[in-house]
Amino acid sequence: MNIPSFDDALAARERITPWIHRTPVFTSSFMNELTGAQLFFKCENFQKAGAFKARGACNAVFGLPEDKLEKGVATHSSGNHALCLSYAAGRRGIPCYVVMPRTAPQAKKDAVRGYGGIITECEPSTSSREEVFARVQAETGAEFVHPYNDPRVIAGQATCSMELIEQVEGLDAVVAPIGGGGMVSGTCLTLSNLAPEVKIYAAEPEQADDAARSFRAGHIIADDAPQTVADGLKVPLKDLTWHFVRNFVTDIHTASEQEIMDAMRLIWQRMKIVMEPSSAVPLAVILRNRDVFAGKRVGVIITGGNVDLDRLPWQKA
Amino acid sequence: MNIPSFDDALAARERITPWIHRTPVFTSSFMNELTGAQLFFKCENFQKAGAFKARGACNAVFGLPEDKLEKGVATHSSGNHALCLSYAAGRRGIPCYVVMPRTAPQAKKDAVRGYGGIITECEPSTSSREEVFARVQAETGAEFVHPYNDPRVIAGQATCSMELIEQVEGLDAVVAPIGGGGMVSGTCLTLSNLAPEVKIYAAEPEQADDAARSFRAGHIIADDAPQTVADGLKVPLKDLTWHFVRNFVTDIHTASEQEIMDAMRLIWQRMKIVMEPSSAVPLAVILRNRDVFAGKRVGVIITGGNVDLDRLPWQKA
Repeated sequence: MNIPSFDDALAARERITPWIHRTPVFTSSFMNELTGAQLFFKCENFQKAGAFKARGACNAVFGLPEDKLEKGVATHSSGNHALCLSYAAGRRGIPCYVVMPRTAPQAKKDAVRGYGGIITECEPSTSSREEVFARVQAETGAEFVHPYNDPRVIAGQATCSMELIEQVEGLDAVVAPIGGGGMVSGTCLTLSNLAPEVKIYAAEPEQADDAARSFRAGHIIADDAPQTVADGLKVPLKDLTWHFVRNFVTDIHTASEQEIMDAMRLIWQRMKIVMEPSSAVPLAVILRNRDVFAGKRVGVIITGGNVDLDRLPWQKA
Repeated sequence: MNIPSFDDALAARERITPWIHRTPVFTSSFMNELTGAQLFFKCENFQKAGAFKARGACNAVFGLPEDKLEKGVATHSSGNHALCLSYAAGRRGIPCYVVMPRTAPQAKKDAVRGYGGIITECEPSTSSREEVFARVQAETGAEFVHPYNDPRVIAGQATCSMELIEQVEGLDAVVAPIGGGGMVSGTCLTLSNLAPEVKIYAAEPEQADDAARSFRAGHIIADDAPQTVADGLKVPLKDLTWHFVRNFVTDIHTASEQEIMDAMRLIWQRMKIVMEPSSAVPLAVILRNRDVFAGKRVGVIITGGNVDLDRLPWQKA
């Protein structure tokens, strides 16, 4: 297991700075009153390609040695990593092959193609995605960049909380959504080195709560094909991300589908930002566990903004 | 006619600073490539109460003399001015009476009530709104704060472009939506004093093009009850705003309903911000008149973000 070091995270920051945004931190007096906490929303929905995953993808792509450039990169992803890897590959002028579930939002598929990514579709299950991907990789010889269980990717994601703690002083806690655990692992990598007093909470859909169950059980539990509106959070933990979750996360809280949709709508309505269901899970969790966060200064990672505007969750029939 | 001076605008800035946000300016490489211009989006959708009108409303309310406080303020508005006046009155702890068309978006009515405003509904025509308002004002004795034809309001709106030219150097032009002309008048007041080289363009829905026709005719032409998706832009010019439009605006361009909806959707999709149809008219106009703006540094006023999330324009049956 090749665990990324904090030096890797510092190197990532230098490497990716030209290709990513230093995203703004938003506050909302409405949200503060509602939760009793002081919330600082790190808006990665404004990130290049619309998600924090541009950080990890750029670190992997721009760290690639010359002799691997020609065959390009390949990955499987429920959406944002595909998009972000296509963005990064496009900036470096190399091909990018992506395996996506056929059920992924149309907006994400269109955007992947818009950045030049070449899509092969699979069934919406972990097993199908891994099977189809093995074939694509064998055919192309491209460098595999895993959406989260990759030290280059985790080191890239770690740059998000570096910015956050520069932008906001005296944080008591950070809450990030957890799917495969890439963002949470990057957050752990940075905060355990720069601000170990800041507690790290992961927020997960009740209907895809494998990370919360793993955390309690003390070993990885993976679900095949969980169903949740938070489509970015369906994937399981892997060894690298489990390492960070197990060692540095304070707790993992869950929220119901309705709580996630309500929190998402509230953020759109009051903060005027377009963000994904996955990004609403932290607020849903804070609202459900008010006593944990009240009176605290809490960083909230808004992980992405790539949503299908024709199919908003609260408008489904 | 009591035309506000630039000193009034400077006083407004000092008066309202504690009550409003200095809103951020967003850029988008996608939008720059699409238009061939360099666009700087002044995001008043992030303003207090969700619209630039918080500026003018706060200037009127916080400039009110002590002996007028008890009876409060009153207005008629298609939405955002009602909301923003309610916000301002609430902050000063005085009553706020608002006459709104019964067809105004539910989100706006709810938000007015949420800020403590007291609503009386009228029919969706200029004549009905003025009639009902006269009755409300007679009954309450409240101070009338017109949504735009009021020197206090125009002086308040003038603070928006003061910030913009501090945030962005070397602008060639500013494009703002035009309904009654409050934002455009405030922009004229500031730029004619601080940056007279910056051209001012107004952007208007084709289906509510009374300002464009007035501009060409050389006198005010008012429509009763025009229909457009840009619900904030249905009202006509009045003497004060006509003064500024006639003397300082370079040109008024129009856009079709489809162009406005397409521009709105594009901004949501690519810039990840929630904004109103009215705020999309400038981008629609820039896309339609590419040769006017290509190669220029252009400020674009995103005027508000109070949209009914259950009835997005591109989702209407």
